[in-house]
Amino acid sequence: MIITFLTDFGLQDDFVGTCHGVIKRIAPGADIVDITHGIEPQQVLQGALVLASTLPYMPDGVHLAVVDPGVGTERRAVALRGGDGRLYVGPDNGLLVPAAERLGGIGGAWALENRAYRLEPVSRTFHGRDIFAPAAAYLAGGLDPAELGPPLEPGSLVRLDIPAPVVDDGFISAHVVIVDRFGNVQLNLTTEDLSRAGIEPGTQVEIEVGLQRFYASAATTFADVRVGDIVLYEDAYGNIALAINVGNAAEMVSARPGDTVGITVRPG
Amino acid sequence: MIITFLTDFGLQDDFVGTCHGVIKRIAPGADIVDITHGIEPQQVLQGALVLASTLPYMPDGVHLAVVDPGVGTERRAVALRGGDGRLYVGPDNGLLVPAAERLGGIGGAWALENRAYRLEPVSRTFHGRDIFAPAAAYLAGGLDPAELGPPLEPGSLVRLDIPAPVVDDGFISAHVVIVDRFGNVQLNLTTEDLSRAGIEPGTQVEIEVGLQRFYASAATTFADVRVGDIVLYEDAYGNIALAINVGNAAEMVSARPGDTVGITVRPG
Amino acid sequence: MIITFLTDFGLQDDFVGTCHGVIKRIAPGADIVDITHGIEPQQVLQGALVLASTLPYMPDGVHLAVVDPGVGTERRAVALRGGDGRLYVGPDNGLLVPAAERLGGIGGAWALENRAYRLEPVSRTFHGRDIFAPAAAYLAGGLDPAELGPPLEPGSLVRLDIPAPVVDDGFISAHVVIVDRFGNVQLNLTTEDLSRAGIEPGTQVEIEVGLQRFYASAATTFADVRVGDIVLYEDAYGNIALAINVGNAAEMVSARPGDTVGITVRPG
Repeated sequence: MIITFLTDFGLQDDFVGTCHGVIKRIAPGADIVDITHGIEPQQVLQGALVLASTLPYMPDGVHLAVVDPGVGTERRAVALRGGDGRLYVGPDNGLLVPAAERLGGIGGAWALENRAYRLEPVSRTFHGRDIFAPAAAYLAGGLDPAELGPPLEPGSLVRLDIPAPVVDDGFISAHVVIVDRFGNVQLNLTTEDLSRAGIEPGTQVEIEVGLQRFYASAATTFADVRVGDIVLYEDAYGNIALAINVGNAAEMVSARPGDTVGITVRPG
Repeated sequence: MIITFLTDFGLQDDFVGTCHGVIKRIAPGADIVDITHGIEPQQVLQGALVLASTLPYMPDGVHLAVVDPGVGTERRAVALRGGDGRLYVGPDNGLLVPAAERLGGIGGAWALENRAYRLEPVSRTFHGRDIFAPAAAYLAGGLDPAELGPPLEPGSLVRLDIPAPVVDDGFISAHVVIVDRFGNVQLNLTTEDLSRAGIEPGTQVEIEVGLQRFYASAATTFADVRVGDIVLYEDAYGNIALAINVGNAAEMVSARPGDTVGITVRPG
Repeated sequence: MIITFLTDFGLQDDFVGTCHGVIKRIAPGADIVDITHGIEPQQVLQGALVLASTLPYMPDGVHLAVVDPGVGTERRAVALRGGDGRLYVGPDNGLLVPAAERLGGIGGAWALENRAYRLEPVSRTFHGRDIFAPAAAYLAGGLDPAELGPPLEPGSLVRLDIPAPVVDDGFISAHVVIVDRFGNVQLNLTTEDLSRAGIEPGTQVEIEVGLQRFYASAATTFADVRVGDIVLYEDAYGNIALAINVGNAAEMVSARPGDTVGITVRPG
C-alpha cells in the first residue's frame, strides 16, 4: 500500500526519517512516496495547495500531510475518507480539505483519539511521529478508519480562507503562492482569470511588485519569449506563473510568497 | 531487511544516492530508511546523539551511519552487534556507541577488514561507498558479522566525550547541541537537570547567550506561552530545548551548535 | 526493476515527488534510487558528468535523468539502450551520452513520441512528469523501447562539448566542475594529466583562482597533509580535486563551477 507524505519538516533534521521509521515498524510493506518536505515552515495554505495540485499524480493510498503550527493546542487530529476511497491523515487545520474536495469530496471523517493507534506517551510537539504517522501506517495495513476514533461531521472540519485575485478589465491584483527552485513565481491565478481581464498569449503587460514595475508578455511557455524576458504563462499544474526564459524571475522581481502582484495590460 | 542510514553527506551531491546504489547492487531487496543526511559536516557528536535519539523509532535492522572526519587515516571501520540483535556499521570514532548502549549494549564488534566485502580498490576518501555501504548490504542479506573481519574487544571502541551541563541551585550552564529547521535550540539538558536547578513549568528564567540576555519561561510546550515569548521545554526526544511560540528561537538568540547557554532563575 | 533518477529539480519543491508518484502509478513495483536532485539548475554538463561517474555504482535498470533547459522547445526526448542492456531516458541534449558511452556504448535510440506512453495533455514546462517519468516507468515494467517512438540514428544524438584542460610541462589550466558539500573542488583533470605536467604526490604547487594565489601540495589523500593545508588529490571517482584537511577549500579559494584554476609547479 502506498503512503504519500507531505510536510514542512525539511530534510536537514531527522523528522521525516523518524516518521518513516515509525511507519515501517507498523507497516513493513508500506511504500512511502515523499511528495515534498519543503513546504515553508507552518504555511498551511501552501501545503494545502501543493497537496491538491500533486495528488492527481499520486497512486491511490493513504495521504499523510503534516503542516501543523497548532501542535500542542486543542486542534483536532483527523483521518478523512474521500469519495473515491482515498484516505487522508493530518491536522484539522484545513491542510487536507482542498485535496480531498478536488478528488471526489469527503465521504467520512474521524478524530484520531484511539490511544491504541498512537505512540504513547504522545509528545506535545511531534504529533507527526506520535499520532499522524502511526495512523497512516495502520490504515495502510488495512485498518478501518472508524477504528481510529469517533466520527466527525465533515462540515465541522476547519477550512482555509483561500485568497482570491481581484480581476477587472485590463487589470489583475494577485498574490504569490510559491516560489520554486528555478525562480518561477506561482500566482493564485488561472488562465480563466487572465481571459476575464483580456489577457491572452501575446498580450503585453506591466507587472507591479512592491515599488517596482516590469514589462512582461503573456505566452504559452517561457521558451516563447526572448532569453531574459519576463513571461506570464500557465504552469504545469494549471496555475499562472511568472518566469524568465533562462533566468530567475523571483530574484529579478524580488517576489516572495504572500506578496501582492499587480498586472496591467499595456496599451498597444 | 531494513537498513537505516544516517550521514553528514547532505543531499546536494550524489554521495547518498551512490551508497543507495551500492546497497541495491548487493542486496536488491533491502529497504533503506534515510534517518537524516543533514548532520553538520564532520560533527561526530551531533551524529551520535541523533542516532541514539532516533533509533528507538526505527525497525530492527542494520544501522549504517557515516560521519567520518578521519577517513583516510588509521581509524578503524567496524560492525557492532547490539545486545538486542541490532547490527551497526560505521567508523570507530564514537558515532555508533551511544545508540548501541542505549538499546541494549554492545554484544560484539568486528573490524571491516575482509576485502571480499568491500568495493576494491577502496578509495582514500569515500569509505561510505567502498566499505560501510557494502558491509551493511551484506549484513542485510544475512551475512554473519564475524565474516567481515577480526573480532574487536568492545572495550577498545572509541568513545565520545559527551559534554555535561553544569547544574547548580538556580543556575545552569549548558551547550547547544542542534538547531533544527524551525529554529528550536536543543540543549544538552534533561528535565531532571532542570528540576535539580529548581526549574519547573512556570518558572521564569533569564537566558544568556554570548553577550545577550533574554527572559524566558519554563513550560510544558511552546503553545503554553504567548506568541513571541521564549520557552524552555522538553522536546519530543526528551531533551530540553529553547523555542519561541510561532517564531525562530535560534535567530532571536543567535545560537549555534556548541554555544554556551546560561540559564538563571529570576527572583519572583 | 530499478529506476535510477537524477535531476536538477532540487528537493524544496514537489517536482521529484510528483515524478515518483507518476512512476508508481504506472509501475507499482518499481524501486527508485535517487542518485541526486542537486545538479545546479540547468547545468547539463554537470548532470552528464555526475551521471557518468555514478552509474558504475548503480544496479542495471532504467536510468532516468532530467536536466532540461530546452523544455518546451524542439529538442527531442529520447530513450537509449546501452550496449550492456541498460536503458536511459531523458532529453536529447547530451545529458545521457557520456554515461552510456562509458558503460558499453549506445546500441539503440528512440524518440519518445508515442502518445500512449505520455501523460496527455503534455504540459509545456514539465516533461519530467509528462514524458520522461512515464517512459521510464513503462520500460521498468518491461516495455520494448521501440514501442516508445521511431528509432533514431545514435550518431544524430546531441553531444556535449566537454572542456579539456591545458596541460604543459609544469603548468596546467583546468576548470572547476563541481563544488561539493564539504567544499571539495572537483576539476576536469585526471591523475594522467597531473603526471604529464610532472606533478606527483609530494609535488609542491601554486594554485591560481581569479586574482588569488595559494600554495598547495599534491598528495594521495587530504589526510596526508597538515590540518589547514590545501591538497590536490585524486577523489573517489578518479577526478583530481582541491581540498583542505579539515576545512572548506571552495570557501578558502572562492571557487565556483566554471572557474579557471591555474596550477604551477613550484621550484623546489
